[in-house]
Amino acid sequence: MAAAPVRIFVTGGTFDKEYNELTGTLAFKDTHLHEMLSLGRCRLDVSIRTLMMIDSLDMTDADRAIIVEQCRAATEARIVITHGTDTMIDTAAVIAAALPPAAGKTIVLTGAMIPYAFGSSDGLFNLGSALSFVQVLPPGVYVTMNGRDFSWNAVRKNRETGVFEALHHGGTIPFSTG
Amino acid sequence: MAAAPVRIFVTGGTFDKEYNELTGTLAFKDTHLHEMLSLGRCRLDVSIRTLMMIDSLDMTDADRAIIVEQCRAATEARIVITHGTDTMIDTAAVIAAALPPAAGKTIVLTGAMIPYAFGSSDGLFNLGSALSFVQVLPPGVYVTMNGRDFSWNAVRKNRETGVFEALHHGGTIPFSTG
Amino acid sequence: MAAAPVRIFVTGGTFDKEYNELTGTLAFKDTHLHEMLSLGRCRLDVSIRTLMMIDSLDMTDADRAIIVEQCRAATEARIVITHGTDTMIDTAAVIAAALPPAAGKTIVLTGAMIPYAFGSSDGLFNLGSALSFVQVLPPGVYVTMNGRDFSWNAVRKNRETGVFEALHHGGTIPFSTG
Amino acid sequence: MAAAPVRIFVTGGTFDKEYNELTGTLAFKDTHLHEMLSLGRCRLDVSIRTLMMIDSLDMTDADRAIIVEQCRAATEARIVITHGTDTMIDTAAVIAAALPPAAGKTIVLTGAMIPYAFGSSDGLFNLGSALSFVQVLPPGVYVTMNGRDFSWNAVRKNRETGVFEALHHGGTIPFSTG
Repeated sequence: MAAAPVRIFVTGGTFDKEYNELTGTLAFKDTHLHEMLSLGRCRLDVSIRTLMMIDSLDMTDADRAIIVEQCRAATEARIVITHGTDTMIDTAAVIAAALPPAAGKTIVLTGAMIPYAFGSSDGLFNLGSALSFVQVLPPGVYVTMNGRDFSWNAVRKNRETGVFEALHHGGTIPFSTG
Repeated sequence: MAAAPVRIFVTGGTFDKEYNELTGTLAFKDTHLHEMLSLGRCRLDVSIRTLMMIDSLDMTDADRAIIVEQCRAATEARIVITHGTDTMIDTAAVIAAALPPAAGKTIVLTGAMIPYAFGSSDGLFNLGSALSFVQVLPPGVYVTMNGRDFSWNAVRKNRETGVFEALHHGGTIPFSTG
Repeated sequence: MAAAPVRIFVTGGTFDKEYNELTGTLAFKDTHLHEMLSLGRCRLDVSIRTLMMIDSLDMTDADRAIIVEQCRAATEARIVITHGTDTMIDTAAVIAAALPPAAGKTIVLTGAMIPYAFGSSDGLFNLGSALSFVQVLPPGVYVTMNGRDFSWNAVRKNRETGVFEALHHGGTIPFSTG
Repeated sequence: MAAAPVRIFVTGGTFDKEYNELTGTLAFKDTHLHEMLSLGRCRLDVSIRTLMMIDSLDMTDADRAIIVEQCRAATEARIVITHGTDTMIDTAAVIAAALPPAAGKTIVLTGAMIPYAFGSSDGLFNLGSALSFVQVLPPGVYVTMNGRDFSWNAVRKNRETGVFEALHHGGTIPFSTG
């Protein structure tokens, strides 16, 4: 049985940052997703589309509207989004508001703490993880980092450690807004 | 909510092969799993145990009996086994015969085409994939390679391409033994 | 015959830059020189001393005075200095003014366009080059980049290409074959 | 002044070994020299010619005759030869017998303990070293490993450590300054 087709939307983030040797600064050029899928010998039916190539701290409401619209328009039911980690959860919340589980789409956001181009990146691990979760999780919006999957409204990034942690919802937080 | 604990059993395979610079040959030393989990910033509750460190073409029935026994004895319900790709499916079949789904264990075998130590390995991608599938798949024995999960009896390794492919069962193969 | 002892002075520069994954910025921590010498299986009698760990654009006259003083005080006649490429030639000129060939010291400055920690660095090539030139060149101050050695006053960094190029001196070298 | 042109002859050796993922064995394909020179941002006037692609333990007298003939025929006065480390010194001796210093050629043999393709190789360091020594050493045949240059008849490979060591000649060099 063939694996279900997966759409990957690239938005930039640390995942795709590179070192510009003439300026000595970090910058974006092209996505490394094709190279990463090749390295991972990935044989899923994947199509990649770069929506933007930005630092997630620079992501605007208009950018997020583009992402939502592309998720809505995608013919694939399974979508992975590469995204900077700083506002990944914010974008996940916007997508979740627009595309509830009833929309029938499983959407997984992932990123990296170290650029793939720098050799010692967590990106390849995270990509393997995201592409796996997206195939088996029920419709909904998820964040995948650190080998774990989190529902969009049950996770936070710990800024001190860089680790994504589960939020412990209890009865005491009746109106969580994610 | 904390992620469920995962046991990793290391058996060797290409995953952990190294280059011995004095002899100019490939050999095993210690496992790279700890380093790989660290690189992937994995925050699962994982415990690693090396059962053997061998080429899977050298794996004997006695070796497989050890693996089965360790899977049975593990207190974790979720188990990843790193294994050479050449006989990974054979070992999966032996485990499946001993531990049917009713045993309540989700067991995922994975490996690599290129040694992790050689820099351009698929190992980190496969490890991210295996650790993700093992958390969400129902009890059973699976093989994870090329970004895909296969039931142990629905997959073959294509020796010409090195790719793991789905076996297409149909009504015409009523008594498949894997 | 044993190779002559070599002193390495570390001043920072792109060579030793790292990616800080919590802030998403480039920064200095410890030098990578020990790791690089180990990777290169270097068997020279080398002693490494870190004088500073800064971007060469931030290097002050006081910093250069420290470098000069350390070169003067070193018991070794052969010295390699790792340095950012932007002002490497300026520092070389200051050293050359203080330590003319009669001082009996062969001093080679080198650097990198890509941080060693980023995997695809020119640093290891440049280090092999600098350590070789320093063993055989006569007393004087040199810059080694791009596989070449340049006298401190016969080189410029081309800012558009990042390449170190020979300066073509005029009337003072009447029969240049350049 | 332009740097003198350098000829590189490729003969194989660990330098250029690769991992064949279908057979799980080490093998030769194409040379990595072009990629290595590019990574090192080498700006020498270099031309590369692959003479053979073999393990140096398999090198025959006929192979060495080819190398000698190519060294003789090269228009460049400066030649680097990449070679397996096991018989590098034997080949150097054959070249030295055919091309004494009076032939006017500086010939440097180098190699690697770890294949370049495996990421943690000493090859890039050794290449930077060999290309530097070849530009400045007087005519003769040399071996460059471990950051050092050795005359072809004053070096041995220590098989236990993999390190190239200076031979201490006896009575024929009465006033060695060691």
